[in-house]
Amino acid sequence: MKIIIIGATGTIGKHITKALQQDHEVIKVGSTSGDLQVDISSSASIENLFKQVGSFDALISTTGNGHFGPLKTMTEKDFRVGLDSKLMGQINLVLIGQHYINPKGSFTLTSGILSDDPVLLGANLSAVNGAINGFVRAAAIELENGIRINTVSPGVVEESPVYFPYFQGHIPVTMDRVTQAYVKSALGALTGQVFQVV
Amino acid sequence: MKIIIIGATGTIGKHITKALQQDHEVIKVGSTSGDLQVDISSSASIENLFKQVGSFDALISTTGNGHFGPLKTMTEKDFRVGLDSKLMGQINLVLIGQHYINPKGSFTLTSGILSDDPVLLGANLSAVNGAINGFVRAAAIELENGIRINTVSPGVVEESPVYFPYFQGHIPVTMDRVTQAYVKSALGALTGQVFQVV
Ligand SMILES: NC(=O)c1ccc[n+]([C@@H]2O[C@H](COP(=O)([O-])OP(=O)(O)OC[C@H]3O[C@@H](n4cnc5c(N)ncnc54)[C@H](OP(=O)(O)O)[C@@H]3O)[C@@H](O)[C@H]2O)c1
Ligand SMILES: NC(=O)c1ccc[n+]([C@@H]2O[C@H](COP(=O)([O-])OP(=O)(O)OC[C@H]3O[C@@H](n4cnc5c(N)ncnc54)[C@H](OP(=O)(O)O)[C@@H]3O)[C@@H](O)[C@H]2O)c1
Repeated sequence: MKIIIIGATGTIGKHITKALQQDHEVIKVGSTSGDLQVDISSSASIENLFKQVGSFDALISTTGNGHFGPLKTMTEKDFRVGLDSKLMGQINLVLIGQHYINPKGSFTLTSGILSDDPVLLGANLSAVNGAINGFVRAAAIELENGIRINTVSPGVVEESPVYFPYFQGHIPVTMDRVTQAYVKSALGALTGQVFQVV
Repeated sequence: MKIIIIGATGTIGKHITKALQQDHEVIKVGSTSGDLQVDISSSASIENLFKQVGSFDALISTTGNGHFGPLKTMTEKDFRVGLDSKLMGQINLVLIGQHYINPKGSFTLTSGILSDDPVLLGANLSAVNGAINGFVRAAAIELENGIRINTVSPGVVEESPVYFPYFQGHIPVTMDRVTQAYVKSALGALTGQVFQVV
């Protein structure tokens, strides 16, 4: 299979890349790193990526920023960081990518535990993650030709200790479990699922 | 209590208004109708509304648009209709309103069943509703001085027959049940809840 991984060089993405690249043609994409570059916050940049790649069998996105900060001082500008990057960016990968993906192909996005198990400072990401979960459930019933879509919703991962102080009492999830959720989505047969890795 | 209802003249809002206005000071707000006007898609307009109203005890929002249409032809511009109106609009009511609300006050937003029980053409609203649910869970743990926040997530309502063809097999919910969910949120003591009315 020809698999595009957006965020392939990231904390999570590099493990997914490792798990898939032996048996598949993996195209690693980052904003500055990887085989090809894209800025997911720009639909023109996404369109350009797909024009370079042509058709593909699976797209895995494990990227996107949100605003992390107190609700008390949060502004629309802060809130739009997550809307423009992690939310609209990943949705655009699907809205545009659906015109390039092969029959029976799959999209796998990334949301996260904060939609359902919030922490202080995380309101923007709670909203963004909830939106991605809702979108995936809905998009799955409209995609045709056997094309599937899921999202992986990880807890804080073991290789991101910088986040641990903000996730008191959360048990970091192993990279192996997180990686396998993406593999299950891309190589399995389920659609419209939120794969919670907790 | 001084209660602001945004969307007070709408299908749902007029019932909430009726249920609350006998015992409370209700300020009815619409974009063209009501005692005061606001355009929730503009943060300046929201700021202006709160400047006129001053402090208040409860805000109920039952308004906001989304894009309803096929995923296959959906563009970023379509998708942003819901992000800018129903999502960012309602979030801005909280981000700005938190600086005007009285201690022990409450915010009640509106999401909807599509976050979890999608229909064809509804992907934008599924995302928007999921975002509102996630935001409310997170904002509840940061609001101080006893200030609460919930969202009501109704199924298609009995007084919106125009939507029925798109909600095959959905059992329309009664206006009484929907109205009471808003009353429960505003006059009760729960916070961080998604009140599903199905
Ligand atoms: N880490 C966690 O504990 C955790 C838990 C739950 C959910 N998540 C979610 O998982 C996703 C990935 O997290 P991570 O910790 O692996 O992130 P990360 O280590 O920061 O990696 C981000 C990856 O995305 C790429 N990237 C950055 N900006 C981009 C842009 N504008 N367009 C395209 N690619 C871009 C980066 O490549 P360049 O370096 O080339 O820019 C990199 O490959 C995020 O959505 C995050 O919210 C993470
Ligand atoms: N109806 C349903 O079956 C149903 C089911 C689930 C969820 N919902 C959600 O419930 C909410 C209300 O639905 P509804 O059917 O009651 O809507 P509606 O009948 O169209 O009423 C909308 C209300 O919002 C006001 N409004 C419109 N644009 C506005 C703006 N830009 N700024 C401020 N106020 C504005 C309108 O006042 P003006 O006329 O003055 O503009 C009106 O009072 C929506 O978020 C909808 O998604 C509805």
